[in-house]
Amino acid sequence: MQIRDAAAVISTILLLACTGWRQGSEQDAVEAINRLQKEVDETIVRGDTEHYLTLLADDAVLMPPNAPAVVGKDAIRKWSQEMSKLFRMDRYAQIDDEVVVGGNWAFRRATYNWSLTSLATGKSLRDSGKFIIIYRRQPDGSWRVARDIWNSDTQAP
Amino acid sequence: MQIRDAAAVISTILLLACTGWRQGSEQDAVEAINRLQKEVDETIVRGDTEHYLTLLADDAVLMPPNAPAVVGKDAIRKWSQEMSKLFRMDRYAQIDDEVVVGGNWAFRRATYNWSLTSLATGKSLRDSGKFIIIYRRQPDGSWRVARDIWNSDTQAP
Repeated sequence: MQIRDAAAVISTILLLACTGWRQGSEQDAVEAINRLQKEVDETIVRGDTEHYLTLLADDAVLMPPNAPAVVGKDAIRKWSQEMSKLFRMDRYAQIDDEVVVGGNWAFRRATYNWSLTSLATGKSLRDSGKFIIIYRRQPDGSWRVARDIWNSDTQAP
Repeated sequence: MQIRDAAAVISTILLLACTGWRQGSEQDAVEAINRLQKEVDETIVRGDTEHYLTLLADDAVLMPPNAPAVVGKDAIRKWSQEMSKLFRMDRYAQIDDEVVVGGNWAFRRATYNWSLTSLATGKSLRDSGKFIIIYRRQPDGSWRVARDIWNSDTQAP
């Protein structure tokens, strides 16, 4: 075998390995992200702020409608505790439109449908809307929620 | 040179080339995306629907607050023409928080600040809020707006 034959063989193997690895890892990534999101949803319904925080990237940003962005875990802890005092989440359902992976980042586009009870008035509040959640792969290979923005489909009063 | 030496050299060159290419291309991608976004902003202020559409991916999705998602160019053309009949954009300013590239996808997180005039009432409307725009690299290497979701920082009335 000549050196240039060896070079061709090695390059081909590297290319195939790289392509195969990428496709395999994208499928794995989507599955890992779906498991993460399921855990996030269950945690939100339970109102379990501390467990929710473990599912976020350290620099996570929440972007709720009609309020400024909530930047970083400390601010998110405060915001989430505040929400838990104001509302109980009775029902949360989500329909996915897509989950897309690009390198160490990924995003989910989906619609939501929820019922809350106001703990102050006892009134039930329903809303449907849409969101984009961006995930980031961490140095240990696990995925975390990195950015989360949503808005209502319902016309403002 | 032995075959295994050649293999080591070729692998190292491929790895270095790949790493260098990725870093170079990420910088180029951010610059291309910033040029695209500048064009988008100018187009929105002009209310130029047809030019705006050329800056979108074919499967683009707009996710405006208090309305359902607008999916695909045909729906976006209708939505944009409708908005142009209702409002004139007098001022649009944007402050970036980040532009992140992951493979053939990228996103921008930013805040906006705008003044509109209602063409029906002549009233001026101001709003500030935040958005995430997701871009996708097209087969020809250019970038296009693929997803766009925003919401107001202002408390609902």
